[in-house]
Amino acid sequence: MSDPTLLIPDNTLITNSPEEGRALAVKMARLTIKITQPDAVIREKLRPVYANDAAMLIAIGQTVAMEFATIARANGYWK
Amino acid sequence: MSDPTLLIPDNTLITNSPEEGRALAVKMARLTIKITQPDAVIREKLRPVYANDAAMLIAIGQTVAMEFATIARANGYWK
Amino acid sequence: MSDPTLLIPDNTLITNSPEEGRALAVKMARLTIKITQPDAVIREKLRPVYANDAAMLIAIGQTVAMEFATIARANGYWK
Amino acid sequence: MSDPTLLIPDNTLITNSPEEGRALAVKMARLTIKITQPDAVIREKLRPVYANDAAMLIAIGQTVAMEFATIARANGYWK
Amino acid sequence: MSDPTLLIPDNTLITNSPEEGRALAVKMARLTIKITQPDAVIREKLRPVYANDAAMLIAIGQTVAMEFATIARANGYWK
Amino acid sequence: MSDPTLLIPDNTLITNSPEEGRALAVKMARLTIKITQPDAVIREKLRPVYANDAAMLIAIGQTVAMEFATIARANGYWK
Repeated sequence: MSDPTLLIPDNTLITNSPEEGRALAVKMARLTIKITQPDAVIREKLRPVYANDAAMLIAIGQTVAMEFATIARANGYWK
Repeated sequence: MSDPTLLIPDNTLITNSPEEGRALAVKMARLTIKITQPDAVIREKLRPVYANDAAMLIAIGQTVAMEFATIARANGYWK
Repeated sequence: MSDPTLLIPDNTLITNSPEEGRALAVKMARLTIKITQPDAVIREKLRPVYANDAAMLIAIGQTVAMEFATIARANGYWK
Repeated sequence: MSDPTLLIPDNTLITNSPEEGRALAVKMARLTIKITQPDAVIREKLRPVYANDAAMLIAIGQTVAMEFATIARANGYWK
Repeated sequence: MSDPTLLIPDNTLITNSPEEGRALAVKMARLTIKITQPDAVIREKLRPVYANDAAMLIAIGQTVAMEFATIARANGYWK
Repeated sequence: MSDPTLLIPDNTLITNSPEEGRALAVKMARLTIKITQPDAVIREKLRPVYANDAAMLIAIGQTVAMEFATIARANGYWK
């Protein structure tokens, strides 16, 4: 398929393990930011802003937790 | 049906793939903003505000994660 | 029944379509605000505050996403 | 039972209708505040603070949405 | 068992009633704070900060709602 | 397997008890922060910032509640 996936790597929620599922959650969270702010230069400028701000790091943690909830369920919790 | 859909494109949560489901999540999140602030000029003025603010970009990511949780479930996680 | 519904229009979560379900989510979110701030004059004064504030518009989007998750599930995702 | 219920009225999540379920969600949200800030005088002083603040009204809306999700599910969505 | 439970009282999510389940939700929310800020003196100093702040009281309400969603489900909604 | 797990200890969501599940939730929340801010020196500097801030402690509590919801479900609520 010629259409690239921009929001979900490999166009699937299924992963081999919880660790890979968690990495996918982190990736999906980042790709939402990327589609909302497509300019890589600005994204690079924002990185030290959130990476040095405790409140924003916590908020990122919440986003990843939300994405992971969906991925974990899609994978039957890898049981 | 003559009534246009304003909040959910094509009036369905079902998509062909995770990637399309994710794009729908982004779209639905934007349409809520649009119905709350219908003035396109104001929305355009607000775009650089959130697109350059790390905390708001993270919050948008949370919204998309929430919408996607519902869409993914509606689609049986595309399994 | 003589008791008016103040929080959920027509006292049901069931709708004919995703679009109608989404409209109900928006309505329910607004009715919570209304019961918390019953003064219509104050609510009207607050409208331009949130409608021109990117962070608040995003937060409203999160509320609608949460309400919609419940409504969508109540309707079996309209499948 | 002599022990009063402080957090959940009538000690049940089951209600007769969505409207009553929603009212319970609002009540439960308020009772959490009450147990965290038991001083009625202070709570009364805080009421105009949040009732006139758009961001706080939105946040209250999110809390009610979360409580309602649980209540709606407990009631099988009143179907 | 010699190992004390620090995060979940009695090491179970099962309670006799919604009221007890709600109290457990409040307790679990507090125990997360305790493990993150183990110094009781500091926690006591922070108590008047959040107990007099409407926005923080609302945020605490959201945390309790989230914990309760899990507990209620674990208990089959006490039906 | 030579690949270390960075995001989920032991690469599993399954634990022996609610207490252990809760500890895993706390750990997973911390590991998201760690991957977002890999510099241990900066993370140490941020610790007193959030550990002395009531609003941030509450936000951390929300993150843990979200992670725990997923873990509890993965474990069938340890019933």
